[in-house]
Amino acid sequence: MYSFKNDYSEGCHPNIIKALSETNMKQQDGYGDDDYSYEAKKLIRAKIKNQNAEIFFISGGTLANLTVISSALRSHESVICANTGHIHVHEAGSIEATGHKINSVFSTDGKIKTNDIQNILDEHVIIPHMVKPKMVYISNSTEIGTIYKKQELEDLSNFCRRKDLYLFLDGARLGSALCSNNSDLSMSDISELTDIFYIGGTKNGALLAEAIVINNEKLKEDFGFHLKQRGALMAKGRLLGIQFLELFKDDLFFSLAKHANLMATKIVESIKTCGYSFYTEPSSNQIFPILPNKLIDKLSKKYGFYIWQKFDNKTSAIRLVTSWATNETIVNELIVDLRS
Amino acid sequence: MYSFKNDYSEGCHPNIIKALSETNMKQQDGYGDDDYSYEAKKLIRAKIKNQNAEIFFISGGTLANLTVISSALRSHESVICANTGHIHVHEAGSIEATGHKINSVFSTDGKIKTNDIQNILDEHVIIPHMVKPKMVYISNSTEIGTIYKKQELEDLSNFCRRKDLYLFLDGARLGSALCSNNSDLSMSDISELTDIFYIGGTKNGALLAEAIVINNEKLKEDFGFHLKQRGALMAKGRLLGIQFLELFKDDLFFSLAKHANLMATKIVESIKTCGYSFYTEPSSNQIFPILPNKLIDKLSKKYGFYIWQKFDNKTSAIRLVTSWATNETIVNELIVDLRS
Amino acid sequence: MYSFKNDYSEGCHPNIIKALSETNMKQQDGYGDDDYSYEAKKLIRAKIKNQNAEIFFISGGTLANLTVISSALRSHESVICANTGHIHVHEAGSIEATGHKINSVFSTDGKIKTNDIQNILDEHVIIPHMVKPKMVYISNSTEIGTIYKKQELEDLSNFCRRKDLYLFLDGARLGSALCSNNSDLSMSDISELTDIFYIGGTKNGALLAEAIVINNEKLKEDFGFHLKQRGALMAKGRLLGIQFLELFKDDLFFSLAKHANLMATKIVESIKTCGYSFYTEPSSNQIFPILPNKLIDKLSKKYGFYIWQKFDNKTSAIRLVTSWATNETIVNELIVDLRS
Amino acid sequence: MYSFKNDYSEGCHPNIIKALSETNMKQQDGYGDDDYSYEAKKLIRAKIKNQNAEIFFISGGTLANLTVISSALRSHESVICANTGHIHVHEAGSIEATGHKINSVFSTDGKIKTNDIQNILDEHVIIPHMVKPKMVYISNSTEIGTIYKKQELEDLSNFCRRKDLYLFLDGARLGSALCSNNSDLSMSDISELTDIFYIGGTKNGALLAEAIVINNEKLKEDFGFHLKQRGALMAKGRLLGIQFLELFKDDLFFSLAKHANLMATKIVESIKTCGYSFYTEPSSNQIFPILPNKLIDKLSKKYGFYIWQKFDNKTSAIRLVTSWATNETIVNELIVDLRS
Repeated sequence: MYSFKNDYSEGCHPNIIKALSETNMKQQDGYGDDDYSYEAKKLIRAKIKNQNAEIFFISGGTLANLTVISSALRSHESVICANTGHIHVHEAGSIEATGHKINSVFSTDGKIKTNDIQNILDEHVIIPHMVKPKMVYISNSTEIGTIYKKQELEDLSNFCRRKDLYLFLDGARLGSALCSNNSDLSMSDISELTDIFYIGGTKNGALLAEAIVINNEKLKEDFGFHLKQRGALMAKGRLLGIQFLELFKDDLFFSLAKHANLMATKIVESIKTCGYSFYTEPSSNQIFPILPNKLIDKLSKKYGFYIWQKFDNKTSAIRLVTSWATNETIVNELIVDLRS
Repeated sequence: MYSFKNDYSEGCHPNIIKALSETNMKQQDGYGDDDYSYEAKKLIRAKIKNQNAEIFFISGGTLANLTVISSALRSHESVICANTGHIHVHEAGSIEATGHKINSVFSTDGKIKTNDIQNILDEHVIIPHMVKPKMVYISNSTEIGTIYKKQELEDLSNFCRRKDLYLFLDGARLGSALCSNNSDLSMSDISELTDIFYIGGTKNGALLAEAIVINNEKLKEDFGFHLKQRGALMAKGRLLGIQFLELFKDDLFFSLAKHANLMATKIVESIKTCGYSFYTEPSSNQIFPILPNKLIDKLSKKYGFYIWQKFDNKTSAIRLVTSWATNETIVNELIVDLRS
Repeated sequence: MYSFKNDYSEGCHPNIIKALSETNMKQQDGYGDDDYSYEAKKLIRAKIKNQNAEIFFISGGTLANLTVISSALRSHESVICANTGHIHVHEAGSIEATGHKINSVFSTDGKIKTNDIQNILDEHVIIPHMVKPKMVYISNSTEIGTIYKKQELEDLSNFCRRKDLYLFLDGARLGSALCSNNSDLSMSDISELTDIFYIGGTKNGALLAEAIVINNEKLKEDFGFHLKQRGALMAKGRLLGIQFLELFKDDLFFSLAKHANLMATKIVESIKTCGYSFYTEPSSNQIFPILPNKLIDKLSKKYGFYIWQKFDNKTSAIRLVTSWATNETIVNELIVDLRS
Repeated sequence: MYSFKNDYSEGCHPNIIKALSETNMKQQDGYGDDDYSYEAKKLIRAKIKNQNAEIFFISGGTLANLTVISSALRSHESVICANTGHIHVHEAGSIEATGHKINSVFSTDGKIKTNDIQNILDEHVIIPHMVKPKMVYISNSTEIGTIYKKQELEDLSNFCRRKDLYLFLDGARLGSALCSNNSDLSMSDISELTDIFYIGGTKNGALLAEAIVINNEKLKEDFGFHLKQRGALMAKGRLLGIQFLELFKDDLFFSLAKHANLMATKIVESIKTCGYSFYTEPSSNQIFPILPNKLIDKLSKKYGFYIWQKFDNKTSAIRLVTSWATNETIVNELIVDLRS
């Protein structure tokens, strides 16, 4: 059995283990004040071309999301999110637990358009009886594998600035999104167009590590307190610093994401050749082919994956996820099995 | 410069890096459903002699504290804690951020006695105008290095059961506490006498890892949801499982704690020989000698440590922390420097 | 100008002012421990035929909703609510501010069916990554004037008990609902079929007063603490007790609601005669006729009301609300104006 | 039996009932947009000599405290308060339930000095591991009947402005404080020297009503949302407006407070004549004489009051509270009983 269930089935890229080993006995200050974290932040600032960005490392996506959102909003302010958004459906109410309402907008492709936001604003005019929408949460790639084009992100960014809304981008799978063949966005575009975002390491070769990047001055103030208050300030911050140092040294972060995408593209092409369609446009390392249930049964004997949605008695969409660690030999086998 | 500032200045015990390396490419399910976590939990259940305990791994102490306390209490219930308690002073209001009041009791040795709890209960009789104390938080070793004796913990445990209070033990430094020459408590005693506690890995040889052990049936219900909601459910739970597997295989956890304690004891004996006293009874890997400021100045040229409290113009208490990684050669040097 | 904007435009029924005046200088204990509150609770327990009910008086609906919901749920538990539900759209995020997610279900008539709840339960199976739905919030009458039939409420009640969900009924306009010509429910049915509900006084003749009735033993425990913690425990609880005493003495509560409904019915019949339709089935004191914009313009010169929804260039739904205080002479004028 | 237990044993000043009666059937907009509220706010702005103040009416003290504090603070910010402070001990954890820590300072007279605040600031320097103190909560009169002198309040005000701390004054008993013979403060001083405060009506002749006055621009922003979110926005806001209109028309507020103080002063003088002392300096309508237990027993047959603290086997401090409604004939009787 080989798993295409997710992009966190293996440990981490071997370079990271090597770096952990080599630095292991060097004493460092705790809580992010270590040499590796400083160095890694420098690399990231260079990559995003924003020397003023404040960067904080954190262990995972849910913790990043709840810390960012609760640090930015006053209690009467809400966050707008696609109905498929991770914070809305898969984080056990973490945002509400910090006191904030999520305004969800229906989306078929996991993305939000300015029109969706305007609708929410139009609905929230009975003051002070309704929450005040103040932040827009998007993810790139989205929870259903789609990605934002530069124009789309620019539109959102301009709209949010005009409407005094913060734009927050969840980049748990940002590597795969930016390295997509369909992407025309760079890491520095992301920094320029958002108020705050994070770069996902956990799903792109790290053991655990996300880098929160704060571009908006207002959101920088006292952010460290929130990190501590939410239990997100790691004693051995070096563990996060070392990993991002490895990922951004020699662009390992991007080469790992490219591998994940390449493996996905191979599968996508094979599926298209077979005449099957997709639940959403395949663009990144998560793909959602719609396959006959018989074929799904057969594949499930050899490969691990989730059934995403049943369509009719005969077909379902499944989710296949590739990663930095996906074995090309197995991918080739899968392609053979798909065709047969 | 050699740091005695804390017990998290280095990475982790080499066995852990070795295990990470060896298991690295083995695919595992996420979120704690990996083989290593299952195996590690078995070892811990055997060690605490409690087959019914539910065990959850988590990345750090503050996250453990806030998840445990908020999962156990209804919003009108409070937690009793020593004025020196970590949750009260050093976690940036994390408990209050989940909605709960802390009732602090003054303590000179960092420990809580039944009498302190009774006083709090006596003060909270104007119902429903005051919070309802429902949990007692203690730490072993405490934030100022002292440890609980078996009789003390039994008294607290009996008292809490009679008064329908949960007893929660923060074991961020439990290894050092249990391996103290002054300790008559075992890991299984801890499980028997508390409702919930955690075993600290981060300060005893792990990169990051605490094991929350739930003994009380009532506190087990739905705990996993809280872990997720607070951002504490790691995608690569294997990272925590592997570490606890290494720590509890062959009792590495205890041998590391013994080393830390032995290093502290050597320093303590030397300080006593020199005729200096201590701010609290030295019992574990945190010691607080009261030294002449001139000597402190001299030591600070070669060693890193915190000045804990100034006493008068001439003397101060400093905190020296040893760990699994403390270099005995340096300890011998320090002893020479103390004596000269 | 005469206002049909809402049912809280006037003060209170004169009997209440009379009672306030007569009892004014009689000393009473504070915080609900007054003779009037005790007496009023007796009357309500008799009316609902439930001697075991615990009753608490509170100043308003939003405060009732947030206190009830936050006292009943643990932090990972959510409440299911129609998309039109007051707690979801018109309480400024008050429920989320206490830490709980609302799962909204789309409803065209403001009511929830068992099928809607089952859908939510079916969606929430990825444990522990999603919230745990634990309560169903309904209102009778609903925010858009519709009411529950006995069979509907029985179905919901049975379903919730089978699924271990609390059923909470917001009765801010319960008087009008129960006195509707279409209603086959009694106050004692409400108590029997729900876990907790409240009886609205503010919109039915009181200055401010809602009576929270707790039927489920589990929800009674420590409820008073929550009332205090949310700022809902009034020093002069007598003010609430006196009002409910007047409302339930001689069934004033019901005769006031009947008046409100009668006034609405008169308007409804006239509108039907004119050939206009309604946005929702008119059943209680809130009616939503769909009228030509020209007529709306004309009416708005003499009467106050809200435009609920624009349908096309020519027609809109407006909301007309009658109350215990609605002047029948004005209603007759309105009818004339509608017809002309 | 006559009660000196508190200042909310009776209903309200007859003028208020008269005004409620006279305005009863006049239709008004809800939620504070009524003519009476506008008028009352004008009177208050004139009295405090601050035309820029924003004023909101609210039903009670706990609700005022939690709404003010949670609207002003970000989640990592705390509020400093005397250990006797109402928010710290008698509000069932209401502030913590909104997510904020209270830093309590020990006080023998219920008041806070700049020195106490400086100590808290000095303790909170380990950033970001500790909360950030951002507001100072004081009450005038305090929970133990003492009052602030102008110099004391000026010192606090200057200190807070220098340290960028908000100064919030709980004026649940502000009338009695300002009308004390020992007071040299005016209502306009209070407005000038604080960032936000409230004027208590409930304990000074109203049924229920506190007026929150916001002086600091920063605290005005979006305050209304918080009022709604906490369930504090009353549908019939007229009820609050009418009461404050009566209280501030012809200075009824002050004459009621003077009566309360005069009654207290009569009792105080009699007690002093008898040679008894006081737990705190008697200055307002709450006095705490230390009396022989035998005398206390005797008095308790005819008068209701609380025993505040037992001193030794023979004496205790009791709390006697007078109010706008206190009957002078009974006071004279009490004086006779005290002397005999």
